[in-house]
Order: sequence, then C-alpha cells, then structure tokens
Amino acid sequence: MADRRSAFLQVYYKLKSELLEDPSFEFTDVSRQWVDRMLDYNVPGGKLNRGLSVIDSYRLLKEGKELTENEIFLASALGWCIEWLQAYFLVLDDIMDNSHTRRGHPCWFRVPQVGLIAVNDGILLRNHICRILKNHFREKPYYVDLLDLFNEVEFQTASGQMIDLITTLEGEKDLSKYSLSQHRRIVQYKTAYYSFYLPVACALVMSGENLDNHIDVKNILVDMGIYFQVQDDYLDCFGDPETIGKIGTDIEDFKCSWLVVKALEICNEEQKKVLHENYGKLDPVNVANVKALYNELNLKGVFEEYESKSYEKLITAIDVHPSKAVQSVLKSFLAKIYKREK
Amino acid sequence: MADRRSAFLQVYYKLKSELLEDPSFEFTDVSRQWVDRMLDYNVPGGKLNRGLSVIDSYRLLKEGKELTENEIFLASALGWCIEWLQAYFLVLDDIMDNSHTRRGHPCWFRVPQVGLIAVNDGILLRNHICRILKNHFREKPYYVDLLDLFNEVEFQTASGQMIDLITTLEGEKDLSKYSLSQHRRIVQYKTAYYSFYLPVACALVMSGENLDNHIDVKNILVDMGIYFQVQDDYLDCFGDPETIGKIGTDIEDFKCSWLVVKALEICNEEQKKVLHENYGKLDPVNVANVKALYNELNLKGVFEEYESKSYEKLITAIDVHPSKAVQSVLKSFLAKIYKREK
Ligand SMILES: [Mg+2]
Ligand SMILES: [Mg+2]
Ligand SMILES: [Mg+2]
Ligand SMILES: [Mg+2]
Ligand SMILES: [Mg+2]
Ligand SMILES: [Mg+2]
Repeated sequence: MADRRSAFLQVYYKLKSELLEDPSFEFTDVSRQWVDRMLDYNVPGGKLNRGLSVIDSYRLLKEGKELTENEIFLASALGWCIEWLQAYFLVLDDIMDNSHTRRGHPCWFRVPQVGLIAVNDGILLRNHICRILKNHFREKPYYVDLLDLFNEVEFQTASGQMIDLITTLEGEKDLSKYSLSQHRRIVQYKTAYYSFYLPVACALVMSGENLDNHIDVKNILVDMGIYFQVQDDYLDCFGDPETIGKIGTDIEDFKCSWLVVKALEICNEEQKKVLHENYGKLDPVNVANVKALYNELNLKGVFEEYESKSYEKLITAIDVHPSKAVQSVLKSFLAKIYKREK
Repeated sequence: MADRRSAFLQVYYKLKSELLEDPSFEFTDVSRQWVDRMLDYNVPGGKLNRGLSVIDSYRLLKEGKELTENEIFLASALGWCIEWLQAYFLVLDDIMDNSHTRRGHPCWFRVPQVGLIAVNDGILLRNHICRILKNHFREKPYYVDLLDLFNEVEFQTASGQMIDLITTLEGEKDLSKYSLSQHRRIVQYKTAYYSFYLPVACALVMSGENLDNHIDVKNILVDMGIYFQVQDDYLDCFGDPETIGKIGTDIEDFKCSWLVVKALEICNEEQKKVLHENYGKLDPVNVANVKALYNELNLKGVFEEYESKSYEKLITAIDVHPSKAVQSVLKSFLAKIYKREK
C-alpha cells in the first residue's frame, strides 16, 4: 500500500522535472523555482485517490494480465493529470471562497508573496495537463480522445462551480432557492465527473475503448459521485471531527448542502422559519438551532435510508453491465465509499 | 470595413448561442443568463484585430481564390477562439493587477455581484474555446493540431504572465532586476505568441499546412510581437493620450517597460539614482522626474532608431521567405503596426 503510493509519487517527480525543462518556455532560475515550489505545495499533498484509481481501474480492465512497466507509467501519468486538475480547481476555489486552510496548510494564495499570482498558478496547473499529455501520449491513437475527455470534464466542472457560486449568491438572499434538484445539479457537475467518471474514463481510453460505447458506465459513476457528495455533506454535520480530520462549517457558510435542501423539503412552515432565521450565521447559537432542527427532522435516518437505497440502485445497475471487468472496476469504487466515515 | 466587422460579429452570436445550448451541461435559466451576459461583457468589445486577422491571413494564403461561405465561417470561428482566449486572459489579468477599468468599462470582477466569480468566468471562457473547436472542427484532419496549437500558445502566455508577475515582485525590491533580456522574455511569452503568431498559425493550419514547417514564420511573428509591445511601452509615455485613448501609468505602476530597462542600460550612476528614487511612485512629481530623465537620455531618439532597425530586420527576414503568399501575410501584419500612433 505504501509502496503503491511511493511508486506513484516517483512518477510525479519525473513529470515535474520534465515540466521544469519544458522547451516551449525559457525558464529563468527564479521562475523555475517558483513553479517547482508551487507544484510541490499544491499537487501531491492530497489523498491521491483519484490518481491512484486510474491505475487500479486499468489493472482490473486488463483482467489479471500483468501490466508492463510502461503501462503502469502511462496509467500513473494519467492519474497525475487528474491530480493536477484537482490542484488547479482547489487553488482557484480557495481564492473564490476566501478560504484559509487546505489540507492542513494555508491556502496557496495566502502564502506570503503569492497572493493573487495564485490565479495564474492555477492556470499553469491546468496547462501542465496538456504538456504531460503531449509529452507522453502524442503518438497514441487515443491522444485526441484524451484531450477531448479532459476538456469536456473540465468544462463540466467549471460549469458546476458556476452554478454553485451563483446559487449561493441567490440563496443568501432567499434560502428557498436551494432545492434538491439544484443540489443534484451542482454536485453532479462540480464533483462527480472529474472525481468518479474521469479516472475510469482514462483507464477505458488507455485500454482502447471508445467512450461513446460507455454511457452507462458514465451514468453509474456520476450517480456514485452524487452519492459520495451527499455523504460528504452528511459527514460535515454528523461525522466525527476526529475521523474526518476537520470541523464542518457548511451551516455557517450557507452551503447548498444535501442536509439543508432535504430539511427544506420535509419541514413544516414553522420549521422553515427556524431554518431561514438560523442558516448561514456564524454564531454558535444559530448553528446549534439548525442542528437541533436537523435532529428533529431525523435527517440521520433520512440519510441512512438514502444511503441504502443508493447502494441498491447502484449494485443493480452494475450487475446488468455486460463486462465482468467493468463490473469489478465499478464495484471497487463503490466498496471504497459505501458507508464511509471519512 | 464596417461590413467585415459586422459579418464577423454575426459569427460571434452564432457561437454564443451554441454555447448557451451546450448539451454537455444542464443550464438553468439563471446560469444561462449569467454566461450570456458575461460573454457579451467580455468577448466582443475589443478592437477584434486578432480575430479578424485570421480571416485576412487565410484569404491571403488562398492567393486570390474566392473563399466559400463555409471557409469564411470556419476562419471566423478560429478568429473568435483567439478573441475568447484574449477575454480569458484579460478577465484574470485585471483581477491580478487589481485594475479598475477595461475598454472604458469597469473590469468584469468589479461589476456588482460578480466579484471573484470572475475567476471561474475566466475559466469558462477558456473552456469555451475547446467547445467551439469541438463543435466545428472535430471531423477535420487538423483538429488535433488546433488543440495542440491553442494549448501550447496558452501555456506560453501563462508562463509569460508568470515571469511578468514575479519580475514585478522582485523589481519592486530592486529596480535593477529589470533588464532588456527580461523585458524581451516577458513580452515574447506574454503577448507575442497569442497576438501575432496564433492568428497566422490558425490560418496556416486551416490551409492544411504543418506548423513544424513554419518555424521561420513563427520567429518573424514573435519578433513583430516584441516590436509591437515596445511600441506599446513607448506610447504609454510618449503617445498622445487623445489618440491612444488612455493616460499611461506604466511609470506609476512600476512596470517592467522597455523605456525603463533601456534607461537603466544607458544611464550613468547619478541618473540611475534618480530612477531608483522616482520609479513606481504615484506622486506626479516623481513621475515628472522619471519623464525628465527619459528626455535627458533621448529615449525618443533611441526608440526611433530601434523602430527603423526592427523594421529593416523584419522586412529582410520576410523577403527571403520562399512563399509569396506567406510574405504578403507577414507584410500585412507589419504594415498595420509600423509607426503606429495608437
Ligand atoms: Mg471551497
Ligand atoms: Mg467553492
Ligand atoms: Mg463538504
Ligand atoms: Mg493588467
Ligand atoms: Mg498584468
Ligand atoms: Mg502598455
């Protein structure tokens, strides 16, 4: 397990050193050091689940055939492209959300001297993906499919981010703009495509598959991504801060969380008033009022029902898939997240 | 002339309406309106020189053969991709520079309700380029070349922006970090590739040319782009504000301008002290001191010599090019900018 991670990290260092010697740009020492530090600060510090799952998925699609060193390298490079994409989104999201910390450190734009140069650093991260793809996949028959895939998923993510940002603007004026369908739309576009679909899609493309033949796989993974985000919203309020590694602030932050939209859906007029008066306020008293209401509405139970129904639906959809290899990819994803506590 | 512009603008409206109905995303009414307004605010309001020059260049490459309606449409779409790219850079640059106005209006991020959502809007603008290319060029044999071209040029521009931002950080501590070679590097990467090379490269690709065979064209256009930016720096101080449409503030803004790096190169120790003490300050007295020094050093004359030398060098390089059609493309670019006053 630790081996797997450190082999993956070795690929990071190789990719980084190629980027720092990119012949399309004349680096100065200062700018090379800047990019070096920016990458180390933002790219490899996460859980790396998305990146690693490209390799896992590719292995499962190969049905037990031993992978060559080159195949492992290429799958890892695609995995890192997803990690780079994630870093790009997070660096910019932290600026837009005016956040303070990320993965236990100050957000990149809060590092002294960085400031809004972080906007351009986000852009550079995004551009690195194309450089990596060009360096290692330019001669592959599926090169253009990779470019199209990353472009489409990035577009969907940015569009999801847009409705998240706009919905919060609207919701702050009027909480009832938040709805279950709006929540689904936000998490589907902002999270599900790049976190769940993209790793598997990369593995499929590398296996020579045409993604147009795998719309069902996409749909299942997108549903899984939505379920994953609902868990995230649930854990933000009901999870153990020790276990999840942070104290949730979705209530204070006026987030369009699954909990608040579910509450809005099932509450009566009086309870709705409590929500309107207390949601999105920093005062711990307001937060406690919201949490009390969530308990009154038994959101814990509502979530548990949602969770087991989602699981059943996903398993049913996976079981009818014609390929056993694809089934095992999808089930391995589901197993990793079902009833997760962090 | 007005016709040409309005035909080009018609293509903008067509491309916009396709984006607003993009099947890869489920728009809400509010988000569709947001993108609609964001595009109108940021994309079509410039001089459109870059975009229009794709069509002009393509026409010249066709050596008088009448263009079909479809060819005009495709060349226009590529032209708009460059305008979209420019809009993307400008929206984000204004945030990073904390600017107030752009093209006579408040910068997009300063529009009420927009704020830092503008960061994500910049990202959307960038993503629209890929959507436009996919919608209209996916089946062309040169589709992947277009993607590579836009990706590489974007990478170079973002890298140029990075050294611009970092150099200004360093320069503010120590003006002598500004040098002619650093200035050349910044303008080459930040401006020349996307403003000069990209339009011609688009036209060449559409004509079925392999860009690897046109390194000399690239070099000439990049040199032209550098010359263009030196003019820009010159006009910022010595141009007529009425003619150029704004009052230059490069001196106040501590810009790594060609004028200051040239001054640093030719001044004596005493004059250098004057520069160090007065450059980058808002007080009109400081600005006047810098301008007086520029006059003392005869920067006007130095610029005029630079201008005629650049022109000669460019003409010589163009004249040895084997293709008359390419020569006429390059000469039409040069004619547009030589001795420009705005
Ligand atoms: Mg955030
Ligand atoms: Mg956010
Ligand atoms: Mg959360
Ligand atoms: Mg600026
Ligand atoms: Mg700037
Ligand atoms: Mg200027």
